Amino acid sequence: MSTVDAPGIDSSEPQHVNRLTDKRERLTFASIACTRFDIYDTTLRDGAQQEGINLSVADKLAIATLLDELGVGYIEGGWPGAIPKDTEFFARAGKELRLTTATLAAFGSTRRPGGAASTDEQVRALLDAETPVITLVAKSDIRHVERALRTTPEENLAMIADTVAHLVSRDRRVFLDAEHFFDGFTTDPAYALACVNAAADAGADTVVLCDTNGGMLPHDVGRIVGRVASATSVPLGIHAHNDTGCAVANSMAAIVHGARHAQGTINGYGERTGNADLTAIIGNLEVKLARRVLPVGRLAELTRISHAISEIANQSPLQRQPYVGASAFAHKAGLHASAIRVDPDLYQHADPVAVGNDMRMLVSEMAGRATIELKGRELGFDLAGHPDVLSRITGRVKDAEAAGYTYDAADASFELLLREELTGARPVFFTTESWRTVSELAGGRGEEAVTEATVKVHAGDRRLVAVGEGNGPVNALDRALRGGLIAVYPELERIALVDFKVRILDSSWGTDAVTRVLIESTDSMSTWRTVGVGPNIIEASWEALVDSLDYGLIHMGVRPR
Amino acid sequence: MSTVDAPGIDSSEPQHVNRLTDKRERLTFASIACTRFDIYDTTLRDGAQQEGINLSVADKLAIATLLDELGVGYIEGGWPGAIPKDTEFFARAGKELRLTTATLAAFGSTRRPGGAASTDEQVRALLDAETPVITLVAKSDIRHVERALRTTPEENLAMIADTVAHLVSRDRRVFLDAEHFFDGFTTDPAYALACVNAAADAGADTVVLCDTNGGMLPHDVGRIVGRVASATSVPLGIHAHNDTGCAVANSMAAIVHGARHAQGTINGYGERTGNADLTAIIGNLEVKLARRVLPVGRLAELTRISHAISEIANQSPLQRQPYVGASAFAHKAGLHASAIRVDPDLYQHADPVAVGNDMRMLVSEMAGRATIELKGRELGFDLAGHPDVLSRITGRVKDAEAAGYTYDAADASFELLLREELTGARPVFFTTESWRTVSELAGGRGEEAVTEATVKVHAGDRRLVAVGEGNGPVNALDRALRGGLIAVYPELERIALVDFKVRILDSSWGTDAVTRVLIESTDSMSTWRTVGVGPNIIEASWEALVDSLDYGLIHMGVRPR
Repeated sequence: MSTVDAPGIDSSEPQHVNRLTDKRERLTFASIACTRFDIYDTTLRDGAQQEGINLSVADKLAIATLLDELGVGYIEGGWPGAIPKDTEFFARAGKELRLTTATLAAFGSTRRPGGAASTDEQVRALLDAETPVITLVAKSDIRHVERALRTTPEENLAMIADTVAHLVSRDRRVFLDAEHFFDGFTTDPAYALACVNAAADAGADTVVLCDTNGGMLPHDVGRIVGRVASATSVPLGIHAHNDTGCAVANSMAAIVHGARHAQGTINGYGERTGNADLTAIIGNLEVKLARRVLPVGRLAELTRISHAISEIANQSPLQRQPYVGASAFAHKAGLHASAIRVDPDLYQHADPVAVGNDMRMLVSEMAGRATIELKGRELGFDLAGHPDVLSRITGRVKDAEAAGYTYDAADASFELLLREELTGARPVFFTTESWRTVSELAGGRGEEAVTEATVKVHAGDRRLVAVGEGNGPVNALDRALRGGLIAVYPELERIALVDFKVRILDSSWGTDAVTRVLIESTDSMSTWRTVGVGPNIIEASWEALVDSLDYGLIHMGVRPR
Repeated sequence: MSTVDAPGIDSSEPQHVNRLTDKRERLTFASIACTRFDIYDTTLRDGAQQEGINLSVADKLAIATLLDELGVGYIEGGWPGAIPKDTEFFARAGKELRLTTATLAAFGSTRRPGGAASTDEQVRALLDAETPVITLVAKSDIRHVERALRTTPEENLAMIADTVAHLVSRDRRVFLDAEHFFDGFTTDPAYALACVNAAADAGADTVVLCDTNGGMLPHDVGRIVGRVASATSVPLGIHAHNDTGCAVANSMAAIVHGARHAQGTINGYGERTGNADLTAIIGNLEVKLARRVLPVGRLAELTRISHAISEIANQSPLQRQPYVGASAFAHKAGLHASAIRVDPDLYQHADPVAVGNDMRMLVSEMAGRATIELKGRELGFDLAGHPDVLSRITGRVKDAEAAGYTYDAADASFELLLREELTGARPVFFTTESWRTVSELAGGRGEEAVTEATVKVHAGDRRLVAVGEGNGPVNALDRALRGGLIAVYPELERIALVDFKVRILDSSWGTDAVTRVLIESTDSMSTWRTVGVGPNIIEASWEALVDSLDYGLIHMGVRPR
């Protein structure tokens, strides 16, 4: 299959041997051109299997929107019928999601042994999800057929063929995930291949070879994919896990040997050691192999989308993550410092700007300036002509980050800082006299706890005293503060706090732990995030709350009264 | 070079093609036997380049001892002469370290252009470190020679030859790190190869091919290593970085194509995206390729050593790390749990015990009865003979997770639930009459906020009233509660709250948002996590706090008073 679409691919590599006389080496596949390549994201299903990740339906909808912004080809939303939350996701997705580039896929398994696809409840639930694509998981390892599924090899093939044919007859495109394929191929290649062909003959669009247990190494993956590609005509995909630390490499090996569909998750989330990290696969394909797998212009969104999804999943971004990590293009070694300024290409494997990341010099004076200039431009401020302002902002950001602030996830607080340095002062919409919040459980178990807050602030020559109730101190403070200020700024009616996150930065209790609070707010047109830091959680929350209201008022064109 | 030592290796793989008729596939290299293989650790030098890692001399000595316990062949201690801390490390290592399996190596560069090795200060410092092995870094990319080193191609070759010969004449074994080798080979293979041969001819033990910028993919690394191996007789090594997410795979590709020396760092620490993770390389070599690279019995130390070094480096252990991560053998999906019980090999790529890790079952809404039965066994409860209890627990877990609880991150709360169902009731150490927490900022901006809590509880026929201050409501409540209860349970002195995380589960503000709080506690011997859920954040925190103290008291063998 691979020779037509990917003329540069040649797994036997004879043309490279003994050409040491060539002056200029050509890296393999640097000029691969392929008519079609699928990036298939399973963050919402396989990614959600990660220990510690628990996504609500609202989280899933938000992540799907981000994946569409990145431009992946397919979004696997979950397993309707098996998981109630996933059934709800598909019902809401049909009404609420407006996908522009991605196609939604529902995941489920082939019919039960001994049954019929047309009457199988679980197959019915897949059709009810009303997605254009259905991804079926099927056994392809004879040992799993016999010991886990407990049926005959023939019945398993019939289950594949029947279910694919039934879904195709209902106008669905079907991708078949061949579970444990590589282990199965190692045990019994003929049977594993028979599973692939059963799906292909029944009309499957693509058969995805899965390293379900994640134990393969790239050399074997490449070899096996090459052999399957030469023995079947159906397009092949790869689904890898990272148990040998090779998920990305196994995916690349499969692609190099003919696969044209790669499954993975953003940031490599997934059960055990995780799935193949799609951000690295996309980076490798686009940057290293010059293979366009995203719509033009989207690659530069890679870092932003990766971080935004880590926030929604409530996972710390991985500092060392390839392409998108905060350290991915950070240089510390003094050895390189002088040379890198002259010729960054000598010390970087790729241009960080291409993936929306930045080069950072960790100890040098230059640190951060480029980042800040770029961020400024992104927010509509041209700092290139103001080297003094740029220096001041760089200094302030460095001090703030050392104290625990993070502006990656709090663009609105960064913009306020930028405006303050550019204009000399920040608009003061109100000043705080005092606040107080009380939470109490009065009557022992069975009673409900209540939280209330009082705030005293000054705005437009008025002293405002207000009270608010809430489900916790921050919520109560927010309600009291907005309730009071609305007398002077009725525009605040439109602003609401959406979410907040707390992180203790130094976990060694008893020492001076610092707390960082991130608050997300919305005016129903857009959302923005602000940050507060301090030894006291509620005080840090108040700081983020004040930033949030200031930002909202500025963007509504309101001036201090 | 590879054909003698590694008879299984054949990079052209013709023997595999078109053997689909074979019933049993043999994975490539599964039977590699090799007379010698070096595991070369550079955690103390390259690992210390990681953003956020700063090792003292004492830290370095402690890590070296751990590396020796693991049984690596070589420990690169640092760059004497260039970094004062490293000079001190070698001075103290000579006196204080008692290495049993590892050999110490000092790292430094070839002599300066235009000088002589015998009078070069930096080369002198390498000899003064008095290590049996010296690892020299040298340029092998013609562009770096011209643009960064700013000398002629011939002088660079002379620098390599002179320095190697000088050190060999002083009875040192020399490893040559050929910096930017793969980029160099791509630009000018003949020159890159000339650098390798200059070192070999001067008496270098091993030439290590470095992917310094980390931009290579395994297919190209394997091909290039194979070509170099066929063009030189010196043993080759590999030094990879993770910028494409392929550091481990690039190392494996090099090994498969003839390298017999692998450099890396424990846990993949290193500049930018990090170095190749030695724990994964060792796991892959020993477990996947059955190649003995550690002394017998040491592989089972892998998880312990990895975690101990992360403690010294003050880095959180990576939950998803291959082989050694806490999640590496953790199973969440209900789909698999029933089969895992029967046949763990079907769902694990390796035996976790072999690397000193453990299989764990995670309890989640996807979990069925089998998962819970396994989890029970892990905690020491045999549920197999109690189908009714198993059903009740499964039902309770499902209900609880639907309400927002999550047990995969809160083992301790799950164990309490399990105990309650097994014994009919949960021990009651105390009952709550009321609690109250106040946070306030009294004097406007500039003042610091304070938080205080009062609790009223009953324990052992006493009514306890206590007050506590904290950096936020949960911290203050914890202090007040423990402060009061200590009068009845002095054992609580040993328990401390370490961390807590808050998550708002339904982010649509104004509706009935539910808050989930996860609390981590410790008695300095072990840590445990508990969960609380409720409409009020402080109430949810209280629930998790009570679980935390109950669990701690039960595990100290305390009974209600």
